[in-house]
Amino acid sequence: MQKIHAILQLDLGTRSYPIYIGQDLLANGDIIRKHLVSSQVLIVTNTTVAPLYLNQIQAALAGLKVHTIILPDGEQHKDITNWHLILDNLLTNRLNRNCTLIALGGGVIGDITGFAAACYQRGVAFIQIPTTLLAQVDASVGGKTAINHALGKNMIGAFHQPKCVIIDTNTLNTLPERELISGVAEVIKYGLIHHRDFFYWLHGNIQKLLAKDPNVLAYVIESSCRSKAKIVSNDEQEAGQRALLNLGHTFGHAIETGTGYGQWLHGEAIAVGICMAANLSHQIGWLSKSELDQITVLMTTAKLPTVPPQGLSATKIKELMAIDKKVLDNKLRLVLLKEIGQAIVTDDFDPIILDRMLHEYTSVNI
Amino acid sequence: MQKIHAILQLDLGTRSYPIYIGQDLLANGDIIRKHLVSSQVLIVTNTTVAPLYLNQIQAALAGLKVHTIILPDGEQHKDITNWHLILDNLLTNRLNRNCTLIALGGGVIGDITGFAAACYQRGVAFIQIPTTLLAQVDASVGGKTAINHALGKNMIGAFHQPKCVIIDTNTLNTLPERELISGVAEVIKYGLIHHRDFFYWLHGNIQKLLAKDPNVLAYVIESSCRSKAKIVSNDEQEAGQRALLNLGHTFGHAIETGTGYGQWLHGEAIAVGICMAANLSHQIGWLSKSELDQITVLMTTAKLPTVPPQGLSATKIKELMAIDKKVLDNKLRLVLLKEIGQAIVTDDFDPIILDRMLHEYTSVNI
Repeated sequence: MQKIHAILQLDLGTRSYPIYIGQDLLANGDIIRKHLVSSQVLIVTNTTVAPLYLNQIQAALAGLKVHTIILPDGEQHKDITNWHLILDNLLTNRLNRNCTLIALGGGVIGDITGFAAACYQRGVAFIQIPTTLLAQVDASVGGKTAINHALGKNMIGAFHQPKCVIIDTNTLNTLPERELISGVAEVIKYGLIHHRDFFYWLHGNIQKLLAKDPNVLAYVIESSCRSKAKIVSNDEQEAGQRALLNLGHTFGHAIETGTGYGQWLHGEAIAVGICMAANLSHQIGWLSKSELDQITVLMTTAKLPTVPPQGLSATKIKELMAIDKKVLDNKLRLVLLKEIGQAIVTDDFDPIILDRMLHEYTSVNI
Repeated sequence: MQKIHAILQLDLGTRSYPIYIGQDLLANGDIIRKHLVSSQVLIVTNTTVAPLYLNQIQAALAGLKVHTIILPDGEQHKDITNWHLILDNLLTNRLNRNCTLIALGGGVIGDITGFAAACYQRGVAFIQIPTTLLAQVDASVGGKTAINHALGKNMIGAFHQPKCVIIDTNTLNTLPERELISGVAEVIKYGLIHHRDFFYWLHGNIQKLLAKDPNVLAYVIESSCRSKAKIVSNDEQEAGQRALLNLGHTFGHAIETGTGYGQWLHGEAIAVGICMAANLSHQIGWLSKSELDQITVLMTTAKLPTVPPQGLSATKIKELMAIDKKVLDNKLRLVLLKEIGQAIVTDDFDPIILDRMLHEYTSVNI
């Protein structure tokens, strides 16, 4: 029985779109059908999600010209080869400019499908159906699409907004614990950057979240999407405020790239990145020791890692950070915390303190 | 001695930019420097243009961090492999989001560089320096960027406007005659779609144009860019009027794809495509016989082909046309001529007449 918990509107002028949050949204095809441009559809999903939810979507779209492509699962497959496979499929099946792509899966599927939609015939429509907590609270909202390059994560991509985002919380029932926890890192991030109360609420409710309490899940997803929608609608192309969403990402992306995509889940790398950013924020005199500890404790309680993997040196991390998208004129800019609930983008930190922090973090494991 | 003939403004709100037309614009780096976002620059050019003009640009940008990539020359190289080489170069040299790409060459270089700029870090700046007549009057103005796919021309791309277009008519001095003539096809197109007087003016001045008379060249480039700028500023994303610029392109792209990219120059294929569109327009009772003949005569006088290459069947052309970007809901739409100076996009033609026309054109050579 379909139950809509909330419909948020991402306000972007002619590119505005709704984010539906609820239960049993997939089995009922009404929402999807309402946002299709024509009867031509390509569903992009992966080998893990296809056996679970593909049938539901296909049944919901019966009678339309629905094609499907099933990619291998994992961040290491968010690459140019699989992106090209999607384009091959679109061309082989002769889909026109008024077709609609449907991304059914986690952040990887959303990013690669969105980027294929951005480039096919210079831009066609797509719908996001995120099936992981991480994709539901972050990746599928805001129109950032991309694929990875061996030299840097998300380095090839486009801003391309979906026609709608459909979050069916039922899909979390089949989500492995490690994936759920990975999503929690991005949830914690919203509290840290601009929502102090939410951070402390999470402290009190983290166990219920990990236990997939339906009310807690719905609240967390809605709060996170509201946070993101607010920031994105003020700064779609990341000229300013939107960069705050990258708290922990400069360090996190370096960890993901340095360890080889697919070893660490995105949220795991981001959790460590947030701890490193918090530590640096403390060392330069911003974040208090007690706040730093609260962050580490919440990450640990959520079973998230707080230190980088063994074998990744400070030098390697610095090298990888040098190609971060926030670097301007060779000056590294980081998202740091003034306090819990207040993040800023800054290049105003002593590089010696950054070096020291990196060495402390990388020697922990060596 | 730098001489600016005209500065046209393409009016697209925050994405507006100037088109400079003149002589000796490359040797003087002022214009380029004015439009760079930072000191980080990647020049993309090809093996034909590099020996002629690369030194000039490099000298003009002395003191900046200028990288260069030289691609092979030809439409068959406007592919995913070379696009990826540009991205590799950007990442290897650690260019940031505030870098600027410079496309120095013809339409192929402009399209592939623009598409790399559109995708690198979700979009960086680029400058168009077109060195062929075709690129000067068409490809480099309007922000259409793309690469080819084996199954269709320009099927993978983006709308991404340059920071400026710099047209130095001196570069035409080294342009081979066949390339110049290829550009004339796109010039004729502007007359046909919405500028009847210009079409008849071309009839009287085609020999001077082929002889590279400087005044005629400057007038033709300015008129063509004005035509294109007017259409693009009214319809940036091709929701309507801009599709008129594709007169002859549905047939022309099928010829280019069907013969293998690089066999025919783009303008040559477009010339044939325009003749086919004109013929169809006549057969359905729109264009008069005398106007049809005037078009064929002008193409022939300009030494442009008017019939497709041998060995390309009507069936093959129809198959290739089915994936044209103007196809909607499996219905083929074509740009046809009501009369010289008035084109429209329409699906209102008898498919039997289209078939007959295709068979007439393809049996000519068999």
